[in-house]
Amino acid sequence: MTDTITPDWIAADWGTSNLRVWAMSNAGDVLAEASSDQGMGKLSRDGFEPALLDLVGGWINGPITVIACGMVGARQGWTEAKYDRVPCPAATTGFTKVTTENADLSVHIIPGIAQDAPADVMRGEETQIAGFLSRNPNWDGVICLPGSHTKWVHISADEVVSFQTFMSGELFAAISGHTVLKHSVDSTGWDAAMYEAAINETMSRPERLAAHLFSLRAEGLLHDMSNEAARSRLSGLLIGAELAAARPYWLGQQIAVIGAGDIASLYVKALELQGAPATQVQGDSVTLAGLTAAYRRLKG
Amino acid sequence: MTDTITPDWIAADWGTSNLRVWAMSNAGDVLAEASSDQGMGKLSRDGFEPALLDLVGGWINGPITVIACGMVGARQGWTEAKYDRVPCPAATTGFTKVTTENADLSVHIIPGIAQDAPADVMRGEETQIAGFLSRNPNWDGVICLPGSHTKWVHISADEVVSFQTFMSGELFAAISGHTVLKHSVDSTGWDAAMYEAAINETMSRPERLAAHLFSLRAEGLLHDMSNEAARSRLSGLLIGAELAAARPYWLGQQIAVIGAGDIASLYVKALELQGAPATQVQGDSVTLAGLTAAYRRLKG
Repeated sequence: MTDTITPDWIAADWGTSNLRVWAMSNAGDVLAEASSDQGMGKLSRDGFEPALLDLVGGWINGPITVIACGMVGARQGWTEAKYDRVPCPAATTGFTKVTTENADLSVHIIPGIAQDAPADVMRGEETQIAGFLSRNPNWDGVICLPGSHTKWVHISADEVVSFQTFMSGELFAAISGHTVLKHSVDSTGWDAAMYEAAINETMSRPERLAAHLFSLRAEGLLHDMSNEAARSRLSGLLIGAELAAARPYWLGQQIAVIGAGDIASLYVKALELQGAPATQVQGDSVTLAGLTAAYRRLKG
Repeated sequence: MTDTITPDWIAADWGTSNLRVWAMSNAGDVLAEASSDQGMGKLSRDGFEPALLDLVGGWINGPITVIACGMVGARQGWTEAKYDRVPCPAATTGFTKVTTENADLSVHIIPGIAQDAPADVMRGEETQIAGFLSRNPNWDGVICLPGSHTKWVHISADEVVSFQTFMSGELFAAISGHTVLKHSVDSTGWDAAMYEAAINETMSRPERLAAHLFSLRAEGLLHDMSNEAARSRLSGLLIGAELAAARPYWLGQQIAVIGAGDIASLYVKALELQGAPATQVQGDSVTLAGLTAAYRRLKG
């Protein structure tokens, strides 16, 4: 006989690529967790409920609340969820309730955050921000959330004041996979000195960025630059360009970098090179803390 | 009965995507021309000779010289051709002779040009430069050759002094096709005002470039920015970044832009906005002029 899991509620982090769920007690304990690759990007509208039930079906034993965040609430998602407008707290109670076939399911999607000028949007990161702030009350400063679309977020008085999205991660993938540089940067290795030099070079002469890209190919052809070195340099050029553009965010601020190990470390290192020390925070744990804070507000 | 074409020699412009050939008289007249999609990128090493014979087989009636330029001479091409090193004339007689099965064929590949610092290479553009200079003797200034990999080339005393390659065209394709912006820039329309504003914005604040990309998506989501406008703005941001980095090339110089209509016009417009008037020159005709100049040097 297997143990029966009877959670009080279910937390769901539902992004473009993956779905991750936790069976939760009211006390905030994790009773079980599961994940799949059924992200928003792979699902048509009527595929979301089956994808959710695949993971949580065994935890349902009567009516239950599901709190979800992320791209599940995008226009191409399960149901388009609202946006809060800055300035606003992160992950407010402006939930969007989803219509489900299964009458036991009560699914609430956390609102994203939008900014009119400059135009910007986030879905999912607001929940990580809420989780971070629930653990760090009265924290003022700037949160950086690295990823395909890195967000820089100015926090003051427990509100999101402004934010800006940078596509450096996705640019790195597009350049590495779909330009002539694919021959030059195909490597899993890392050359920290090349990365750091490229950060400093782009920060001091950001207007030269476009001149450096094809050089990665030519350095390989003419001077046998290794793919490892070229890959590290490309990463440094792109993150350096991001830091140059994001300078109004991080300069002179308290900084927290929230994210998975490797990519977050690259940002922390790059900021350190600019004399801007940053604290690194694990992304998974703050996501769950944010979903928990949202659940408490819903029940509150 | 079809007319028999009996050229004195054959010119071949053999790039990554296409092969184009001309049946030529010694006097420089074009007797016939043909083209195919059998570019270097599609061919394995033993596919080049058949691809050439598919187009020129009917023109061969005894020993004949073929002068070829472009990526046919790349490391992944038919035979790796030499590079001349700057400073040097364009399209010198440092031809690389190709070994052929057909004993009548005498194929010579024009050398590319390489630069050690900053590392850079060209293959094919040197022939266009030679063609342009054969028509404009004693021309000093800067030649811009727009394309997937745009080249900026400093010419003095009939030599290539230095050059720099920018990947703006290929970046535009990679971003439009392989990032979230594909939803935002899918259009064949054009918004000249958006293009020009983006050029000016990037030229005056090049360090802000990375902040503007995701905004194209968010402006569509929040403010219904059209795909036509977003596409034009993306083009302006990338060409603006290129012009910012290439400023040491074009500032205060006589400028010729060599290339096909639409893309060359974008560069001419962008330069005009910086108070830098440029002359536009059709690319096809200078390629053939360069191949002809190379043939005369070979025979000379």
